[in-house]
Amino acid sequence: MSYELFVEVTRNGTVESRHFGAAVVCDFKGDVVDRWGDIESLIFPRSALKPLLAIHLVESGASDRYALNNAELSLACSSHQGEQMHQNLVASWLNRLGLTEEHLACGAVLPEHTESAHQLLAAGQAGCRLHHNCSGKHTGFLTTALYLELPLDNYHQLEHPLQQLSLDILSDLADIDLEQYPMGVDGCGLPAPTMPLIQLARATARFANPVDLSDDRAQAIYRLHEAITNEPLYIAGHGTMVSELNEVTRGSVLAKTGAEGILTAALPERGLGIALKISDGSARARSVALLAILDYLGALSDEEKNKLQAHISPTIENSRGLVVGEIRPAASWLPGLDRERVL
Amino acid sequence: MSYELFVEVTRNGTVESRHFGAAVVCDFKGDVVDRWGDIESLIFPRSALKPLLAIHLVESGASDRYALNNAELSLACSSHQGEQMHQNLVASWLNRLGLTEEHLACGAVLPEHTESAHQLLAAGQAGCRLHHNCSGKHTGFLTTALYLELPLDNYHQLEHPLQQLSLDILSDLADIDLEQYPMGVDGCGLPAPTMPLIQLARATARFANPVDLSDDRAQAIYRLHEAITNEPLYIAGHGTMVSELNEVTRGSVLAKTGAEGILTAALPERGLGIALKISDGSARARSVALLAILDYLGALSDEEKNKLQAHISPTIENSRGLVVGEIRPAASWLPGLDRERVL
Repeated sequence: MSYELFVEVTRNGTVESRHFGAAVVCDFKGDVVDRWGDIESLIFPRSALKPLLAIHLVESGASDRYALNNAELSLACSSHQGEQMHQNLVASWLNRLGLTEEHLACGAVLPEHTESAHQLLAAGQAGCRLHHNCSGKHTGFLTTALYLELPLDNYHQLEHPLQQLSLDILSDLADIDLEQYPMGVDGCGLPAPTMPLIQLARATARFANPVDLSDDRAQAIYRLHEAITNEPLYIAGHGTMVSELNEVTRGSVLAKTGAEGILTAALPERGLGIALKISDGSARARSVALLAILDYLGALSDEEKNKLQAHISPTIENSRGLVVGEIRPAASWLPGLDRERVL
Repeated sequence: MSYELFVEVTRNGTVESRHFGAAVVCDFKGDVVDRWGDIESLIFPRSALKPLLAIHLVESGASDRYALNNAELSLACSSHQGEQMHQNLVASWLNRLGLTEEHLACGAVLPEHTESAHQLLAAGQAGCRLHHNCSGKHTGFLTTALYLELPLDNYHQLEHPLQQLSLDILSDLADIDLEQYPMGVDGCGLPAPTMPLIQLARATARFANPVDLSDDRAQAIYRLHEAITNEPLYIAGHGTMVSELNEVTRGSVLAKTGAEGILTAALPERGLGIALKISDGSARARSVALLAILDYLGALSDEEKNKLQAHISPTIENSRGLVVGEIRPAASWLPGLDRERVL
């Protein structure tokens, strides 16, 4: 297990904190294009698996049967912020299935979107399961369970046929048998598999270009590309790096976060998959690291970088509204990076 | 700059995230007792300086003039959570000075204490300066400024005589000239000095046993020990490691957090100072690391460790209330640690 210095947090130009990580870029054949740190280290991909877990929803025919639209399919792949638009869509989707919030296995929480959480509290309301960042994924599972006439109870447990089917698909994409690796429980109650970081990049590259997978699986993945590209705000939310990157690149980079410092990106046109882990689990460092890698790969145009500047090197403001520092790729990392722009 | 692996975050027994850090234990003569990582690395001590910044409040005579009690002096050293008790005491103290919240230079924020923040929002209120974790420190500065008849405007700026006096005292304790080191701006608007980590430990050790400082300075420090020991809830708040550690050890360990992964502890009876920095700035790792060092030093009794168990290796619950992991000292760190208890 070894990491490289990826991201520095500065205060008035002096480095205050440092984030270390490992990352790997793979092509859809599984070959490593670039690597930093120990890419064999075991990681929990967490929510970075969501787009891969949504494949079955389409491939099974459930999505067609219930006429899921782009927004719903994007939401099935999402870690959404719990904005009103996300809450509403989960609620209406559940309603169309004849189900309610009570069927969701995830716990009741406040929205991650601060303004939405504050509005709820000011209105005298509390958190609920719809607000959970995983509620779209759970609604996707319920949709498939209904269609396949599987039990709706305990659909989140490892023993449930739906989770076994999901593990099979993940194992296919990652090209390993996930049952042979340690398994945890995720924040929303679903199984949380582990895999070497390199396998997450390989799975992401196959999601980017599924040409070597079965036809049905490949078609399901293309349908998800279309959904996410057309409804980027449903995969995360307003102001997030993931939604803005997807939107700005018009689907040429499909990024997905996972808890504890995980971030993946699928580049369909180039058939590449990127997976990175910030060792300490930091959310603030992973976006900066991914955008630096994308820039290093030449995957972002100047115009795209201009639009994404707030995520490329975010500024830090203090309580008085003064800019007191920034978060940036470490100077020692990625030689050849266009530092004049990034730093 | 080098760090050691201090803390692991696990999920179902498998390590998910890792926090690296540097730490040093010094005696009040300045000699190093124990060390991990690069202890010469430059750090921003941030709020770990607050007890040292409160020395002037007592030493100048301002504290006596305004009859500050233990709770107020503890609050002057605090990063409080903005609970009702903290808000009330800042407000009444300012009122006694003939001042208002408007005199505080820190920005308006919601309390860090989640329940207090939610109560405020539910009551239709917003954040204010009283809630800022630094409002006690700022009220302390205003008290000294009033007593010394210094301008109340811009008391937070580096050029103000109060900040220059504070830097002199910090330089005396840290045994370096802080004006020679980079300076940033803190979250609350005050100057944020830098120093090598070892100097923060030395300053903390001199705060633990000030016998080599001037009599007036030493007496002021003993007064602060008394205040913090008698009012531990005013230096942080309910449920915090800092308040509980101070309370459980009855003042034999006086800990203080700083933003971006900083934590110090003064051990008055042993004349020791500990300073640690988690490289990534994590708050969750610093408490676990400090308690591991204290255990390693034999500074905690079995009874004290029992009472502090929730901070020694905190469990992680998911949204369904299930324990899914824990935060613990890394297995490779601190050989000889009583792991059966800690792990």
